[in-house]
Amino acid sequence: MSDFTDHLKPAHDGTATLQAERDGSAIEVDELAKHLLSRDGFLQRQDKVFRVLSREKLFNKDQQLNLSRPDRYHLGLARAKAIQRIIRREDWDHADYSMAEYLNDEMSPYFLHMSMFVTTVREQGSEEQQAFWMPKILNYDIIGCYAQTELGHGSNVRGLETTAKWDPNTKEFEIHSPYLTASKWWNGSMGRTATHAIVVAQLLLPSKDDPNTYTSHGPQTFLLQIRDAKTHQALPGIAVGDIGPKYGYASMDNGYMLFDHHRVPKSAMLSRYAEISDEVGTFTRRGHPAVVYGSLTFVRGQIIMHARLVLARAVTVAVRYCSIRRQFSDRDAKSHDAPEMKVLDYPTVQIRILPLLATTFALHYTGEYMYQLYHESRSTIEKGDFGPLAELHSASSGLKSLCTTLAADGIETCRRAMGGHGFGGGSGLIGLNSDYLSKPTVEGDNWMITQQVAAYLIKKMQQCVEKPDAASRDPTDELFKRYLQNKDHRIPESYLDPRSGQIDDASIVSFFQWRAAALSHAAYQHRIEQKKPWTKMMIQLHALSRAYSEQILITNFYNALSSTQSNLSGPTPQVLRTCFRLFALYTMEQSATSFILTTSVSSSCLTMLPDSTLELMSQLRPHAVKLVDAWSIPDFLLDSALGRYDGKVYEELFDMAHRRNPLNKVTFNPDYRSEEIVFGSGDGGKHVLAKL
Amino acid sequence: MSDFTDHLKPAHDGTATLQAERDGSAIEVDELAKHLLSRDGFLQRQDKVFRVLSREKLFNKDQQLNLSRPDRYHLGLARAKAIQRIIRREDWDHADYSMAEYLNDEMSPYFLHMSMFVTTVREQGSEEQQAFWMPKILNYDIIGCYAQTELGHGSNVRGLETTAKWDPNTKEFEIHSPYLTASKWWNGSMGRTATHAIVVAQLLLPSKDDPNTYTSHGPQTFLLQIRDAKTHQALPGIAVGDIGPKYGYASMDNGYMLFDHHRVPKSAMLSRYAEISDEVGTFTRRGHPAVVYGSLTFVRGQIIMHARLVLARAVTVAVRYCSIRRQFSDRDAKSHDAPEMKVLDYPTVQIRILPLLATTFALHYTGEYMYQLYHESRSTIEKGDFGPLAELHSASSGLKSLCTTLAADGIETCRRAMGGHGFGGGSGLIGLNSDYLSKPTVEGDNWMITQQVAAYLIKKMQQCVEKPDAASRDPTDELFKRYLQNKDHRIPESYLDPRSGQIDDASIVSFFQWRAAALSHAAYQHRIEQKKPWTKMMIQLHALSRAYSEQILITNFYNALSSTQSNLSGPTPQVLRTCFRLFALYTMEQSATSFILTTSVSSSCLTMLPDSTLELMSQLRPHAVKLVDAWSIPDFLLDSALGRYDGKVYEELFDMAHRRNPLNKVTFNPDYRSEEIVFGSGDGGKHVLAKL
Repeated sequence: MSDFTDHLKPAHDGTATLQAERDGSAIEVDELAKHLLSRDGFLQRQDKVFRVLSREKLFNKDQQLNLSRPDRYHLGLARAKAIQRIIRREDWDHADYSMAEYLNDEMSPYFLHMSMFVTTVREQGSEEQQAFWMPKILNYDIIGCYAQTELGHGSNVRGLETTAKWDPNTKEFEIHSPYLTASKWWNGSMGRTATHAIVVAQLLLPSKDDPNTYTSHGPQTFLLQIRDAKTHQALPGIAVGDIGPKYGYASMDNGYMLFDHHRVPKSAMLSRYAEISDEVGTFTRRGHPAVVYGSLTFVRGQIIMHARLVLARAVTVAVRYCSIRRQFSDRDAKSHDAPEMKVLDYPTVQIRILPLLATTFALHYTGEYMYQLYHESRSTIEKGDFGPLAELHSASSGLKSLCTTLAADGIETCRRAMGGHGFGGGSGLIGLNSDYLSKPTVEGDNWMITQQVAAYLIKKMQQCVEKPDAASRDPTDELFKRYLQNKDHRIPESYLDPRSGQIDDASIVSFFQWRAAALSHAAYQHRIEQKKPWTKMMIQLHALSRAYSEQILITNFYNALSSTQSNLSGPTPQVLRTCFRLFALYTMEQSATSFILTTSVSSSCLTMLPDSTLELMSQLRPHAVKLVDAWSIPDFLLDSALGRYDGKVYEELFDMAHRRNPLNKVTFNPDYRSEEIVFGSGDGGKHVLAKL
Repeated sequence: MSDFTDHLKPAHDGTATLQAERDGSAIEVDELAKHLLSRDGFLQRQDKVFRVLSREKLFNKDQQLNLSRPDRYHLGLARAKAIQRIIRREDWDHADYSMAEYLNDEMSPYFLHMSMFVTTVREQGSEEQQAFWMPKILNYDIIGCYAQTELGHGSNVRGLETTAKWDPNTKEFEIHSPYLTASKWWNGSMGRTATHAIVVAQLLLPSKDDPNTYTSHGPQTFLLQIRDAKTHQALPGIAVGDIGPKYGYASMDNGYMLFDHHRVPKSAMLSRYAEISDEVGTFTRRGHPAVVYGSLTFVRGQIIMHARLVLARAVTVAVRYCSIRRQFSDRDAKSHDAPEMKVLDYPTVQIRILPLLATTFALHYTGEYMYQLYHESRSTIEKGDFGPLAELHSASSGLKSLCTTLAADGIETCRRAMGGHGFGGGSGLIGLNSDYLSKPTVEGDNWMITQQVAAYLIKKMQQCVEKPDAASRDPTDELFKRYLQNKDHRIPESYLDPRSGQIDDASIVSFFQWRAAALSHAAYQHRIEQKKPWTKMMIQLHALSRAYSEQILITNFYNALSSTQSNLSGPTPQVLRTCFRLFALYTMEQSATSFILTTSVSSSCLTMLPDSTLELMSQLRPHAVKLVDAWSIPDFLLDSALGRYDGKVYEELFDMAHRRNPLNKVTFNPDYRSEEIVFGSGDGGKHVLAKL
C-alpha cells in the first residue's frame, strides 16, 4: 500500500539521537558484553541460533498479539516441532536448543518433556525402567509431562488427593481421583500435547492387620500413558485437557487430568528408591533419594540469571525509548522556545529506570557467584559435602523470592515510565510481562518460601548463641558471631564517616550485613526465647529473608567489583561502581526504617539518601544507553518498536499500525440501527458473533 | 459431554465455607451496601440493568479470553450497537447507559462519541454549530471521536505538530501532518468506528507584515468528517486506522490519523470562544473558555469512585477465594493430622489483601466528599466562586495519581496473593488488570501531574509565610498557619500517648496533616528561598503530592466515620473504624521515614506499627467476606470462578476447562516428524500457520 504517508519522517531522528547517546559515553560495549555474557559461549551461541531462527518465517513474532488463544497454542506447537527438526538439521546441542527456546520466547508445548519428565525418569527410574523409557523419550517417540500439582493443592505436596491403590491380586495400581479437587491442574504440556505423564499420587497399600483397609505411604511417582498412540485421544478412565486461557503462557497447554479407577501395571511406579516388594504389598524405601542440593543451587542460579536478562530486556526498552522521547521543556528555561527535554533527563523517570538498570548487574554477580561455587565444589558435592555452597543453597529460596519479585515488578515499572506508548503493543513488554508474572508464584510462592530461609537463619543464630566457639567456615556463622560479640548489638561506629555522613562502599556492605544479623537475632529471640507462634511471625520472617537476600546481592556485587575490575577498561569500572552504590542506596532508602532500627545509621544520615541517589543517577545517565547495549538483547528477542537498537521508534510504531494490523483490512458498519457489522472483510468476518 | 467427572465434588464445600464466614459476622450487609452505594440509585440501577444484559447472549463473557484481537473489536462493536438498541427499547436514561457500560466492562467503540466528542461540541461549538451538529450526534447519525494526542506528543498539548493553515482566498483551513510524529495516535473510537472527529491542531494564520509567512496561534479544535458516509472509507487526503493490540482495551479501536493538505471549510473550527473574523484572517478570542473547575472536580471524583469499585472487585475475588482455599496446617499444631488452614488466616496473605480492603473505604469517603462539596456549591460554582472546592480541585490531580496507583497496584497484589489460580483465567482479573493499567498514564500521567499539586502547595505556603494574617476559609491555609506558628516545627507532643505509645484516631489525622505541612514547607524553602531548580526537585515534589493526598484520604475517612456512624448498626461502625486504623497505620508504616523526619513520632514508636497492624487485621478478618459482599459486585461483573458469591470455585474452574474450552475440541499431532499439526479439528484449524 503506497500513499502520502510513505515519505513522512518523525520530527526528531531517533537513530541520530541514539548515536549521540552512544558517542557520549566511552564505555567499550563489546568488552563489557564479554565480561557479562561469556559463560558457556552465550554471545556466540545467541548469534548462531538467532541467524537460523530469524530466517524461518514461522518464528516471525509480528502477528502474535493478534492471534486467538487456540491459535497461539497451535503456533506454539508448530514452532516446537520446527525447532526439533532444526536441531537435527543443524546438529545443535542441548545448549543451542535452550537458546532457541530463549529467543523464540514462548513456553514450548514440549517444555516439560525435556525438563521435569526426562529428569524424573532419569533420577527416580530403576535401571530397567530407564533402559525402557529413555530411548523413547530422547527420540520423541513419546511426549511426556509432569503431573504433580492439583486443583486443590499446589505447594503442599503431602496434601495431594490423587490415590494409587495397590491391588495384590492383579499386581496393579488403581489410580483414582476421589474428589474434583484431586484433578491434576496446571501441568504444562499435558493439556493437548503429551502422550505420557509422570503422575504423583498417594500410595495406598492394604494394611497388615486388615487387608480390607488401606494405609497411605505418602506421595510416589508413576509413569503412565495418557493418550492413545494412534488417535491421540485420552485413554479410557482418564479425562484430560487444557485448562484454558491464563495471564501468559498462551502457547503452553497447561492441563487438567482426572482418573476413574484407572489401572496401571506394577512397573508404572518409578522404583529406584521405592518398591512394592512382595505379593501382599510390602513397601520398601531404598534410602532417601539423594537430595540434589548442588543442582538445586545451579537451578536457582539459573532463575537469577534469567531474572537478570528479563529485567535487562525491560530496561533496554525503557532506556532507549526514554532517550528518544521528548516532552515539555525545562520549567526554569529562560526562553519560551526552549527545546523539549528527553524524558530520561527527568529525575522522575530516572528514579524508576536507573535503579533497575543497576539491579541487572546486582543480579548478575550473585548468579555468577552461585555458578562459580557450584562448579568449584562439584567434586565435593558429589560426596555430599557442600562446603560453602550449603549456605548459598539455603539462601537460594530467599534469592528466588527477591529476584523474581524485583524482575516482575521492574517490568511494570519500566512500562509505566514510558507513558502512553508503554501501554501499546509496540512496547514489546506485553508478552514478557504476562509470562513472567507467573514467576513470583511458581517453583515456591515468593511469600511462602521465605519461611525456609528464616527457619535456617533462626537455627544458625541458635547454634551461634549456644556454641559460640564452634568452628565454621560459613560466612553467616562468622557474621552472626561478630554480631553477638558486639555488646550493645549496634554496628561499630567506624563504619560511618561522621564528618561527611557519607558511607563508603565497604561500609555499605557492613550495614546490609549488620541489618541481616540483627533481624536474624530478633527472630531468634521471638521464636526460640519467647516461643512466639510461627504463624504470627510470618510477616517478620518474610522481611528477614528479604533483608538477608539483599545482603547477599550487595556482598557479591561488592566483591565482584573489587576482584574483576582489572578486566575492564576506560570508565567501565567506575560506572559499575556507580551502579553498585545506586542499587545499594536505593535499596537502603526503600527500607530506611529497618536500617534505622538495626544499625547505627541515624535518621538524619538517611536524609542525605535522596540527594546521593540523584547525584548517582546523573553520573549514570550518560552511560545508560551503552550499559543496556552491553546486555546484547537482539531486536528479534526485544520485539519492541520502542526498544529498537536503531532508534526508529516512530517509524516502526506507524508501520505496525498502518501496514501490518489485520483489523484495518476489515471495514465495519458503525450504525447501531443495522445489526450488520461488516461492510467489507479481509478475514475474521462474522463467525464470532454467530458463535456467541 | 457426560462422563465420570460429572458427579465429582471438591474435597471441601466452598458454599458451606463462605456461609460459615457470613454466619461468623454480625454485619448487616444490606445496610452497609445502602450506606455505600445509594447515590443516584446505584444499587437499584445495577439490578435493573444487570437483569436486561444478562438475558442477552451477546453479553456473555465466557469466551472473551479465547478471542483474537480483531474479533474482540468486532464483538465490542456488536455489543455497543446492541446497547443502543436496548436503551431505546427499554427507555433508559444516560445513567442507565453508563451502568450498562460498567457492567459490560469493556471500552465501547462508541465511548468517545458520547464523552469527549459530544462534550467538546457542546462546550466549544457556537450556537449555530451546536444547532447543526447536536441532533446528528444524539441520533447517532454520525459517530465522533476526539483527536488530540499525537504519536510524538501526549501530555504536552502545546507541542502538537498537526497544523491548520488558514487560506484567506478560499476561506478554508488546510489540515496537515508535516511529520510522521504529527500522526494523531491513541484516539479512541477513531481506528475503525468514527465518521467524524474533533481534531486539535496548531492554528496558522498569515502574518500581518508578510502574508507569505505564517504565525502560530496555538492549538484550536476543528470538527471534520473523516470517513465517507456510504462506504465508511477514509476521505481523500486522510490516512486513518486502528493502531493495533495494546495491554488492554481490546474492544476499543484506538486510532491513528494523518492529513495530507486536507481542506475543510471555515465552519469546521469550533467557534464559541475563538474565530477567524475577517477575510485576511484576524484571530479573535472571545474570552477564555470558562474553565469548568466544578465539573473537573466532579470528574476526578468519578475517577476515585471508579478506582474504589475496581479495587473492590479485586479484593472481593481475593477475600472470597482465600477464605475457601486451604494450604498447609499450622506449623505449631500438635497433631500431624491438623486440618489445613484457610490461606486468609495467614498473616502473609492478610497483609496483602486486608489493607486493600480498608483502602476501598478510604477511597469511598473522599470520593463522596468531593461529590457532596460539588453538589452543595453548585450555584456558587456557576458564578465562578469555588469556595472550599478550590482546595479540593487543586488536590484532585494528586488524588487522581494516588488513587489510580493504589488501585492498579492493588489488583496485582490481590492476584499474587491468590497463588497459582490467581494466574489463571478463572481469576477474573486478567481483563480488569490489563484495562486498568492504562489509568496511571491517561488523563495526566501519575508522576507528571503531581507537579501541579506541589506547585499549588508551594504557592499556598508562600502566601501563608508572607501574609500570615490574611483571612481564609481553606483548610490547607489553616493547617499551614498552624504549622508555621509552631516554633520548632514539630507536631505538639500532646498528640502522642507517651505511656502506651499508641496513637488515637484523631492524632493519626494530625500526624498525616503535620507531615503534609512539613513537606510543603520544605519544598517552599527549597524552591522559593533557595531557588533550587524545579527539575532537581521533581522526586521530592512527587512525594509531597502523595503525602498531601494521603492526608486528604485520612482526613475524610476520619470525618466521615465521626459523622455517619449513627446510620449503621451492630458491629459495622467499629469495623469501619478498624478499617480506618488499618489503612492509616499501614500507610504510615510504608512511609515511616517520612513520618520520623517530619513529625515527633520516634523510630521506637514506629516499631509497634507491625504488631498494631497484625492486631487490626485479626480484628477485621472475621468480617472480611461480609465487607466485600457489601460492595455488591454481581457475579456477572466479577466474571471470576475464584470470586463467585456462592463459593463454587473448583466446580466453575473445572467446568471452564472441561466443558467450555474451545482448544479441547481440537486434537493435535504432537510428533515433530510430521509437519501436520491437527488430527481432528472443531474450529480454528490450519489457517493460522498458512498465514504466518
